[in-house]
Formats: sequence, C-alpha cells, structure tokens
Amino acid sequence: MNAVMQAMRNHRSIRKFTPEPIAPETLQALIRSGQAAPSSSFIQAYSVIRVSNPEHRARISEVAGGQPWIREAAEFLVYCADLYRINYLCEQQGMGTLTGRTEHFLAASVDVALMAQNVLLAAESIGLGGVFIGGIRNDPARVSELLELPERVYPVFGMCLGHPAQEIEVKPRLPVEVILHEGRYQQERVPAQVAAYDAAMADYYQARSSNRKLSDWSAQTAAAIQKKQREHMLSFLQARGFLKC
Amino acid sequence: MNAVMQAMRNHRSIRKFTPEPIAPETLQALIRSGQAAPSSSFIQAYSVIRVSNPEHRARISEVAGGQPWIREAAEFLVYCADLYRINYLCEQQGMGTLTGRTEHFLAASVDVALMAQNVLLAAESIGLGGVFIGGIRNDPARVSELLELPERVYPVFGMCLGHPAQEIEVKPRLPVEVILHEGRYQQERVPAQVAAYDAAMADYYQARSSNRKLSDWSAQTAAAIQKKQREHMLSFLQARGFLKC
Repeated sequence: MNAVMQAMRNHRSIRKFTPEPIAPETLQALIRSGQAAPSSSFIQAYSVIRVSNPEHRARISEVAGGQPWIREAAEFLVYCADLYRINYLCEQQGMGTLTGRTEHFLAASVDVALMAQNVLLAAESIGLGGVFIGGIRNDPARVSELLELPERVYPVFGMCLGHPAQEIEVKPRLPVEVILHEGRYQQERVPAQVAAYDAAMADYYQARSSNRKLSDWSAQTAAAIQKKQREHMLSFLQARGFLKC
Repeated sequence: MNAVMQAMRNHRSIRKFTPEPIAPETLQALIRSGQAAPSSSFIQAYSVIRVSNPEHRARISEVAGGQPWIREAAEFLVYCADLYRINYLCEQQGMGTLTGRTEHFLAASVDVALMAQNVLLAAESIGLGGVFIGGIRNDPARVSELLELPERVYPVFGMCLGHPAQEIEVKPRLPVEVILHEGRYQQERVPAQVAAYDAAMADYYQARSSNRKLSDWSAQTAAAIQKKQREHMLSFLQARGFLKC
C-alpha cells in the first residue's frame, strides 16, 4: 500500500489537541491541496471561514452542543457551500439569477465535501489530526449570522484541526462487499450483512482501549440518526436561497 | 510537499483510457481506502454500484449526454447516497422509519462525496485516472431503475476509472485568499476577485495544449450552471424518500 492509501486508512477523528498552533503557510498549503479536488463544471462553489475569535469559537461550540474541541483546536474552519459567487457572475454575464434549484444545492454541497476531505487528509498526512463538526447544523442560522454569510451561502460542516493529543484506534468499516454492489443494488443481502457487522462492531466497542461500551452498529446508528433530525434544515436552506425548486 | 499533497495537486479529470483493466483486488483496495473517510455519526450512508454490463454502460452514457468514456473506462462506478440500510436498521431497532428529512439527505450526500474523493485520489496515487460524472443526474430515475436502487437510495454521481491515455494540464484554481475568509465572509471582495481570476483563466484557456478557447471562468461557469438546472431533481428525490421535510 502506498503513502496515500496508508494515510487514508490511518484516519481517526481527533478531538484532543496540544496547544501548538498550525503555521499560516501550512494552513494555506492544506487549503490549496483541498482546492485541487474535482469541482462540478469547475464551479468551485465553496468558501471556508477561518474562525479565530475565541468568543465566536465559544458560540459555535454552544451551537454544536458544547464540543470543547471547537474552542481548543489550533484551527477551526467552517466549510460553506457558496453559490453567492456563482450567482454574482451569472448576473454579471447577463445569465439571470439562480432560482434555488435542488441540483445546484447538491452540486455545491458535493463540491465543498470533496475539497474538505482533501484538506483533512492533507493535514493527517503531515501528522495533524482533526474532526468534521456536523453539529454546526444544530443552528445554522446563528452560525451564518456570526460569520456574516450572504444569501446563497450556507455552513455545511465545521472542521477542527490541530496537533493530536490522543491515541485512537481506527474504527472498522462495513466490509467492502456490503457497499460495493455488482451491477445492481443487492437489497436482499442487507439483513445478513447488518447482522454480521453488528456482531463485529459489538466486539470492537467492548475491546477498544477507551470509551468501551455494550452496543453495536445498528443501535448506535439508529439512535444517532433519529436524534439528529434537525427539523429546521429545509426552511433554513430555503430562506437562504437553496432547495426552492 | 509530501506524496499525499503532491497526489492531490496532480489531479486532472481523465476521460481517455487505455483498454487495460483494473485488477479486482486493486478496485477493492481503492474502495476500502475510500471507506476510511470520516462518516457523519458513522452512518456510512453510501453504496457503490459497479457497472460492467456493456448495455447498461451504453444506457448510462446516453443519460449523461453521450460521454463515451462511460462506455470505455476500465471501471464505471455509480456512487449512491444510501439511507435504505439505515432505515432498515432503524426499523429493526424499533426506532421508527426515516421520514425524508433534509438533514439526512445532506448527511448521506456528504458521506458519499467524502468516500468518493478518497477513491479517486487513491486511484490517481497508483497511476490511474478518472472523472466524476454528474451527468447521471440528467435522468436519475432511469439510472435508479437500471441499477435496481431501492427507495431511500439515489445515484449522486458516477465515476470513470482506468489507465490514462491522455496528458492534461492541471487547471489553475481560485487563489486561496478568495475561498479562505478570515473570521467573516468577505462579500465586498468578490467582484475584484472574480475579475482577476477571469483574466488568469482567459490566459489559461488560450494557452493550454488542447481545447484552446477564448473564454474566461465567469462565462464558462455561468453558462454551465444555468444549462444544468435538472429541474426534475426535487420531485425525483422526494419520490425516492428524500427532502420531504
């Protein structure tokens, strides 16, 4: 396995950091590497807000349910899907205004995700660590106001980056054959696959070095997804110019 | 710059391939590396359909507007946001049925994007090349039918992978300072930034070794996004169990 795949497989979400900062030129290099990712029709529909103000960090940490690593990480970045820039140039080109199409919401959201994954992996490849913060979507309106996001820009997720101060095991993923289907979606295999993975994850949760628990993937995942409904998302996004049609 | 960031910055979309296949164990290693990406609440809400049937490839190529590389690439993969598996386990756990929340649509769509970016980068790191295919969203219902996708699974994008048979220059991205904002979104800087990048891209489009043209980023991007409205996306997604509330 080469260095790139090795870096990928070493990924663990890091939530404890030393106080050591990240040099500005290092952060620039990470973002630049992120931007090298593919972009749908080359729209580059993303912006990243670097949040350094401790008071803003504290407010975002509250939004995210108190996650202290948002305050403590060397860097905290908010990744935004950005159609403001694209709408500006559509209008400048006499090509009309963006009307809030679902397609454009999706293209921008995927664009920023591809870019962000590169940034995290680049960071991990030089010994840094980090974690995605979906919790900013608990109150995306408040985050948007704090960061002065214009219409057609929304905060998709945050990311903490810093020098790791914890050791974490890599969590075993679903077996490849569960997610890679030959020719057609193999729906009939799902029950046995989930049961087998639940057994494997129950062993993992009991044996890992910290945060041991009696649980399995189904129990964890069902609870997590049903807890995070974020019922405001559709109306929030529509108010910001997305998902209107 | 290390091997990981170098691999990222070498990315170009490859659309011409030699006939050489990709070994099954190589494809497995790429997908496994993709799965190592972070996943929102560890839901792993994705499935990848490997399309080998030449007739299916031809039909998907038609959907995507005739892109011949869909037929020709060693591998063609359809990346799906998959809440079928999650819904199954919610029901099994007595945790209810997923109601089509926008939050869950977004979490699954980001999940599959993070994973897919790892797969493409892993492929590029071993000398393969590829391209994302958003064109499958021209008729996602037809693609879903062809691949027998159940409810709560939708095809987000395709990906061609193979051995490159073309040389392509890396396209210059927006300058880092355009997409990285300090503390707040710097809306007032957008007009000058777009103008400067348009000038740089006009030079690039005129000077590159193939497909030279008189254009700039604004003209290209405004035309591309306004052409790709995909007006069916919202009703398609709602019919499949997404974006209902």
